[in-house]
Amino acid sequence: MFNIFPLKGGLENVEGFYFQGVNSNLKPNNEPDLGFIRSDEEVDVEALFTTNRFQAAPIKHFQKYPQDFKTNFLLVNSKNANAMTGEKGMEDIDDLFDTLKEKLPLKNPIMSSTGVIGYRLDKEKIKAAFDKFDFTKRDSDSIARAIMTTDSFKKEIAFRVETSDKESFHIAAICKGAGMINPAMATMLCFILTDANIPKSDMKELLSKHVETTFNAISVDGDTSTNDTVMLLTSRKSQNYDKEAFSEALRVVMQNLALMIVKDGEGANKVVAFEVKGAKNDKEAKIIAKALSNSLLVKTALFGEDPNWGRIASTIGASGCECDEEKLKIFYDNVLVYSNEKKEMDKETEERAFKVMKKDSFKIVCDLGIDEGSFTAYGCDLSYEYVKINADYRT
Amino acid sequence: MFNIFPLKGGLENVEGFYFQGVNSNLKPNNEPDLGFIRSDEEVDVEALFTTNRFQAAPIKHFQKYPQDFKTNFLLVNSKNANAMTGEKGMEDIDDLFDTLKEKLPLKNPIMSSTGVIGYRLDKEKIKAAFDKFDFTKRDSDSIARAIMTTDSFKKEIAFRVETSDKESFHIAAICKGAGMINPAMATMLCFILTDANIPKSDMKELLSKHVETTFNAISVDGDTSTNDTVMLLTSRKSQNYDKEAFSEALRVVMQNLALMIVKDGEGANKVVAFEVKGAKNDKEAKIIAKALSNSLLVKTALFGEDPNWGRIASTIGASGCECDEEKLKIFYDNVLVYSNEKKEMDKETEERAFKVMKKDSFKIVCDLGIDEGSFTAYGCDLSYEYVKINADYRT
Repeated sequence: MFNIFPLKGGLENVEGFYFQGVNSNLKPNNEPDLGFIRSDEEVDVEALFTTNRFQAAPIKHFQKYPQDFKTNFLLVNSKNANAMTGEKGMEDIDDLFDTLKEKLPLKNPIMSSTGVIGYRLDKEKIKAAFDKFDFTKRDSDSIARAIMTTDSFKKEIAFRVETSDKESFHIAAICKGAGMINPAMATMLCFILTDANIPKSDMKELLSKHVETTFNAISVDGDTSTNDTVMLLTSRKSQNYDKEAFSEALRVVMQNLALMIVKDGEGANKVVAFEVKGAKNDKEAKIIAKALSNSLLVKTALFGEDPNWGRIASTIGASGCECDEEKLKIFYDNVLVYSNEKKEMDKETEERAFKVMKKDSFKIVCDLGIDEGSFTAYGCDLSYEYVKINADYRT
Repeated sequence: MFNIFPLKGGLENVEGFYFQGVNSNLKPNNEPDLGFIRSDEEVDVEALFTTNRFQAAPIKHFQKYPQDFKTNFLLVNSKNANAMTGEKGMEDIDDLFDTLKEKLPLKNPIMSSTGVIGYRLDKEKIKAAFDKFDFTKRDSDSIARAIMTTDSFKKEIAFRVETSDKESFHIAAICKGAGMINPAMATMLCFILTDANIPKSDMKELLSKHVETTFNAISVDGDTSTNDTVMLLTSRKSQNYDKEAFSEALRVVMQNLALMIVKDGEGANKVVAFEVKGAKNDKEAKIIAKALSNSLLVKTALFGEDPNWGRIASTIGASGCECDEEKLKIFYDNVLVYSNEKKEMDKETEERAFKVMKKDSFKIVCDLGIDEGSFTAYGCDLSYEYVKINADYRT
């Protein structure tokens, strides 16, 4: 038995780490754009990275360390992805850490970046901002804001997990992501801290397990970035651990952050769960659910609040997966809009479907009636605002 | 030796066919929404259809005829796709033809539809409009308009092909398509007529060959419809044929119509050729070229006229195809914006790239530097207007 209690705030709920965000003059108005997470002792770190072949310099830098290395310092920045910058991009990271070493002892320091692709880091600005770092701070708000790019709100979450009357551990995370979010975790940074006494092998296993149904199940626009990262660090300060409890808490953290990203989809107004069931197998269910959450025509119909199930059906048919016009059923929440017996929507059904679509969040259920495969993907609508944000991104 | 001469107008340049479009009260303002193409004698027909598993009723109706059947009548309509309508949808087509048979002899009549998915045809309106048909008309303009949906201009093309001083044949086509255009020919109807004495086997071979680099190489939004059709009918009236000449003429017809569709991409302002070369093989080049032409982030950058090559690189990296940061080169027309030696754009390069992006049409060349694979896909930008058109489509 265990209990998971939500806590206010973010990373400050976890013992053993210090963190802060400051302004390095990359963002205007003194908004934080540079931050650190550090610990006095070296800690275990586990990370999942983008499947993009052009991995950004900080990811390649991370991967040069020996397997199962420990670290005591993570540097993060926004506005510049340090991607497609070649060897120089990695040398820049080492150069930054050489400067930082004059201020505090670093052991296998790592970096994480997000922003525009194809430009070298402005090292002078970043180095100048090191003077603003207070390495004794535990300021979750400022570092959560430091990693934001097109995000319209900061993303923080924290839980206390009780494994017995007397024992508990904590898990907390910050996250950024709003556009480019896709099957393969695009332009998404997520840093999860815990004080649970989790074995290194469980860190990898549980992170990999839960990423499939959380960050890999969301989609804002189907693109995949060079910098996506989900990272888990543990201080083990609580000395407490229960695998089942930790797994569930990690799932809840990742699920909630993933949904926050969908909710913050660039210009998005609605969060929609595409629940596919009755597919030939889970793999086909996933292909269909993702195709639905990525379809421009489906996304614009969501924006137009139009219960145009024809676009849903057409996308299923185009997915290449097994499907049958006579077995398919489509629901908006619990409103059946298509089945073989009910080909056309009557006025009453249409009215009810319209009402569902007016909601801020709802589900579209596609029962293929073939077999037991199922998967739920999360998506959002496509609005004028999306186009505006992305047409103007660099300017 | 042969020569291909462009002609004014459309289908009226081909002998042996009659065609007309009329209004059946599905479109307002007496705009044509119903049409026919017919011949006095039965003619050979070859067609390529959508890969969508939910093929529309008219496609299934076509496929029920024995292989190599001949026909003397094609009925077309817009505003209603007759898709996801099951057996009833096919019965409706037979019912329409039973009524038409009272007016003229039909042999294996076929139908083609485009419009909203999930509604039965309004047979009463369509039957009432049969009275407006003049079966002796050769009115390409009205039938070209009858198949339009969100198209902003009608698409017609015609050529005379001289195979010797004294011999020639004609080829002409009408086409519709503006949104939903994707790798697999989405919501695209194309009817090609010829009087060339082409063998049946060549019809299939050449249609299949040229569809790959034309209609299957364009993309407006990555969705695939239930109704896509490319159809070739021959009257053989010219009694003339040359395979090489016909193949080239067919390619030119299909290529031009495909580019017209891209140009008419819903809300699109620019036509962009994504020329991928130096890929591991042609298949990988095609995957990358299509990924680029379908990427929302690339499309919004085109709309914003932002030479943001980082999004191009990121999309290539995410394609799953072999690529190497150090071998890749990216050009906007002839402006090199990325190579391993030239990581960041200097001001002058950026100015030149900006100028390219201001153009109505240009190419983005990605040389992967791996091997000899190449493919060119055509795409357009994503504008506010696209969202508006597709959010409002049914209303």
